[in-house]
Amino acid sequence: MTSDIAIAQSAKMLRISQVAQRYDIEEEYLEPYGHYKAKISLDFLDTLKDKPDGKLVMVTAINPTPAGEGKTTTTIGLGDALNRIGKKAIICLREPSMGPVFGMKGGAAGGGFSQVIPMEDINLHFTGDISAVALANNLLAALIDNHIHHGNELGIDARRVVWKRVVDMNDRSLRSVTVGLGGPANGYPRADGFNIAVASEVMAILCLANSLQDLKERLGKIVIGYTRDLKPVLASDLKAHGAMAAILKDAIKPNMVQTLENNLALIHGGPFANIATGSNSVIATKAALKLADYVVTESGFGADLGAEKFVDIVCRKSGLRPDCAVIVVTIRALKYHGGVNLPDLGKENLEALEKGIAHLERHVNNIRNHYGLPCVICINHFTLDTEAEIQLLKDKMASRGAPIVVSKHWSEGGKGAEELAKTVVNVIDTTPSNFKFVYDEKESLWDKMSTLATKLYGARDVVADSKVKAQIKKLEEDGYGNYPICVAKTQYSFATDPALRGAPSGHSVNIREVQLAAGAEFIVMMCGDVMLMPGLPKVPSSTMIDIDAEGRIVGLF
Amino acid sequence: MTSDIAIAQSAKMLRISQVAQRYDIEEEYLEPYGHYKAKISLDFLDTLKDKPDGKLVMVTAINPTPAGEGKTTTTIGLGDALNRIGKKAIICLREPSMGPVFGMKGGAAGGGFSQVIPMEDINLHFTGDISAVALANNLLAALIDNHIHHGNELGIDARRVVWKRVVDMNDRSLRSVTVGLGGPANGYPRADGFNIAVASEVMAILCLANSLQDLKERLGKIVIGYTRDLKPVLASDLKAHGAMAAILKDAIKPNMVQTLENNLALIHGGPFANIATGSNSVIATKAALKLADYVVTESGFGADLGAEKFVDIVCRKSGLRPDCAVIVVTIRALKYHGGVNLPDLGKENLEALEKGIAHLERHVNNIRNHYGLPCVICINHFTLDTEAEIQLLKDKMASRGAPIVVSKHWSEGGKGAEELAKTVVNVIDTTPSNFKFVYDEKESLWDKMSTLATKLYGARDVVADSKVKAQIKKLEEDGYGNYPICVAKTQYSFATDPALRGAPSGHSVNIREVQLAAGAEFIVMMCGDVMLMPGLPKVPSSTMIDIDAEGRIVGLF
Repeated sequence: MTSDIAIAQSAKMLRISQVAQRYDIEEEYLEPYGHYKAKISLDFLDTLKDKPDGKLVMVTAINPTPAGEGKTTTTIGLGDALNRIGKKAIICLREPSMGPVFGMKGGAAGGGFSQVIPMEDINLHFTGDISAVALANNLLAALIDNHIHHGNELGIDARRVVWKRVVDMNDRSLRSVTVGLGGPANGYPRADGFNIAVASEVMAILCLANSLQDLKERLGKIVIGYTRDLKPVLASDLKAHGAMAAILKDAIKPNMVQTLENNLALIHGGPFANIATGSNSVIATKAALKLADYVVTESGFGADLGAEKFVDIVCRKSGLRPDCAVIVVTIRALKYHGGVNLPDLGKENLEALEKGIAHLERHVNNIRNHYGLPCVICINHFTLDTEAEIQLLKDKMASRGAPIVVSKHWSEGGKGAEELAKTVVNVIDTTPSNFKFVYDEKESLWDKMSTLATKLYGARDVVADSKVKAQIKKLEEDGYGNYPICVAKTQYSFATDPALRGAPSGHSVNIREVQLAAGAEFIVMMCGDVMLMPGLPKVPSSTMIDIDAEGRIVGLF
Repeated sequence: MTSDIAIAQSAKMLRISQVAQRYDIEEEYLEPYGHYKAKISLDFLDTLKDKPDGKLVMVTAINPTPAGEGKTTTTIGLGDALNRIGKKAIICLREPSMGPVFGMKGGAAGGGFSQVIPMEDINLHFTGDISAVALANNLLAALIDNHIHHGNELGIDARRVVWKRVVDMNDRSLRSVTVGLGGPANGYPRADGFNIAVASEVMAILCLANSLQDLKERLGKIVIGYTRDLKPVLASDLKAHGAMAAILKDAIKPNMVQTLENNLALIHGGPFANIATGSNSVIATKAALKLADYVVTESGFGADLGAEKFVDIVCRKSGLRPDCAVIVVTIRALKYHGGVNLPDLGKENLEALEKGIAHLERHVNNIRNHYGLPCVICINHFTLDTEAEIQLLKDKMASRGAPIVVSKHWSEGGKGAEELAKTVVNVIDTTPSNFKFVYDEKESLWDKMSTLATKLYGARDVVADSKVKAQIKKLEEDGYGNYPICVAKTQYSFATDPALRGAPSGHSVNIREVQLAAGAEFIVMMCGDVMLMPGLPKVPSSTMIDIDAEGRIVGLF
């Protein structure tokens, strides 16, 4: 089997200016980063205002399993296939964080014959956006401790600073630290911690901002902590937001790269999917809609989390409206949700598959009835899938109102996803979207969470201890009650217990903690362990990554 | 008075490809970053091997004072002036760190009518090199703690880890921290600290490396700490260097920008001038020498520190050989060295000036006799300098073997530095360089330090306590005795006491601490307080930096 990087490095890349030309982007408006990457200038985006929008396809998936579903690969394959069948299509994806590249997960630029390239650039520092986010985040952090050090005019309670520093690295030793040690010259000692850069609220804001001004205003609204009498202190109180926006002046511009089949991909923004929206920037998706007839974007985790956030947060705030959802599923993953464990997924098991299908059914129901979106089911084909399994899945889903298609883009590129592309086009042409939000933003925070839990997760109720309930009340008193909810729960289950596969119901959703993202304009409800700083495994991927004698990157997967 | 950024933003910039064309750099070999910045591909540099080298001019200065000397401004002005008088010249400078931009110092891209542009890009994240350095540094740090966490096969003594994490921010609260708190899942607790990114040994290495392979090998040689029985542990023991080099694959390529007068400037690498060499990358300077007839580069701090390191470390390792040194001096700064304090520097004071001239004389003597370089003295003109003062300085220096010229590049650009340029060309044409190292690398570490202190600083002797002496002995036993010395002492005085202005003599130089930079291949001798993590002032510059309604950066100085 050829490795992803070998496939990527043997691809015939076009100059990014040539790719852009096909989408009528004048070279004048490209800000190239080398010959194969570019940013689009914001001035150009302004000129597109009056153009009609293309159709928006949101790719989501069932709950992730260790077997892998291939959501990014499908997004890329579908985009390539749409171009193959004569549509002008653009793919929008998140930027990979470097931490996981060096940890266990490896790169995040698709796989097999559905990749975006140059993959080594995309995975390693790319155009520097994530570094800019980290710098803006850390400037604010430095300004907070500096303010306390120089007399603390604002009366920030050092025990109630909620703004953390970040690095784009998996580094567990930074999860919990003490800063400001070593005497009065070194600041004020306090307990602190670092998150991975993409978990920064700055990243969440970057992905929701509609313009540089909007970005700056949202940065100013960030709540960095509280005074002793619990009054929120904002980034604007520290006059931090202007300089933070200045640091992000290039990061806000969408990045252009290409697929293996030389179609345009915008890779821009990479917020966490638990404490943030988990989808690429609004600016990139909006730009793509002006430039193409079809735009394929991806939401984070499964359809219960990422797709819901796309609908309730991203679309609500940006005005984006998907025309169709594609839900990616694999036979293997459904067998896993039906109770089979990883080592046995290669064997045919119709019984487990049938059991697992309940999991898919709930997602399809959510997408169609609660998000109001036409839905196409994509079976991402694996070599060991049997005919009988595929047929069973097709039969079972036949009457669910969502066409189901086998797709082979991983092994065949866009060619393998042509049927998927045709189906998506047909569904969009024939099925009007009935797009809706799952909840009304005027509902109370608690009711919004209840609606999500009972409607989408199959839960009986939502619970929380009195401390959390008091926090929720305080947020509403502080004027943040009309913000949407951003649920941070395990991505592995509809429930909050990752071990509950399939379609659990009757469970309780326990809100362990709430967090305000005032600049991003949502309330994070933490319903389970949320890891904002991953660790490295015993043998990190980084130990395989190297430069060969010709200066090429090797060992990147 | 027009602000630097206003001058910069009103400049007529050429496309960087147009600038490159004038220096016969084919567009094929440019890796553009937007339209006004580019990196030069390493492949192109390989094609230049057989071309003859241009002449190398090293700009240095007297010891810095609060009055400002204008070394960077002079470097740029001289480069522009050389182009004006018909020479093909390139300027090589360091990349500014973002920390000081937000702190007290502000930007570092020249000033007045001698600037490199686009100044807001150069000062704010530029092409991301410093972020890449920080990421490579922090990957190594994460791998160290991860190794200890997962069983510590190499037997790293957690108390003897010397590798620190970095951020490109002035953040005093990170100087002294405890990491790994919060229980076994979060690593192994230990005392630690952060430096500013440009203080990383990775930056020092990047600036001394001759190729990507050389970079990788040097990264592998970094000593990250010691075992319990004091055996050094290397980055290569952790298999970190391959991935670190991969992160730096673009950062190693020199960055091209232009001056206000549209001449080529390479801005690449920005190592600290105390614990590292303080000059731009060897790769950039070597590239410039192949592309131009004259290359003007800058060394850090005063001629006792930066110029000495350029000679004894950079030139020794790289084979670079300056043809001439320019020492920048101001009337104001000499009066300061003659005992006048900042508020009174605007008043004519011939007596103080005459006293301060001893300071300049020693530098000129060092440059001519100990570095063996022809020397030109540049009086960087300030509005309040009087005719009598300038005449006195000229008279006093007339017999010192170094031509002295008044230069007005700050207010007039290259035009104001034409006499300086002509003088430099004439000196190079008529005065052969007698370049030499100040010490032989085969001398013992102690003798090398003694040679520097007595020959250059006017010191009587070098002292150290027995612990430091034992460290020096251990370094020699470990095989590092033939490395050059990198002195970290105050930049404000020839002595180690910043209050000793002028030309102090008979003092002792106390080595407080020694540090091994095994990958950069030098031994740092700390002779005074060395601040590797600056703090922010009460009102940081960042509070002035903003984005205006048109999306332009304002308030950046």
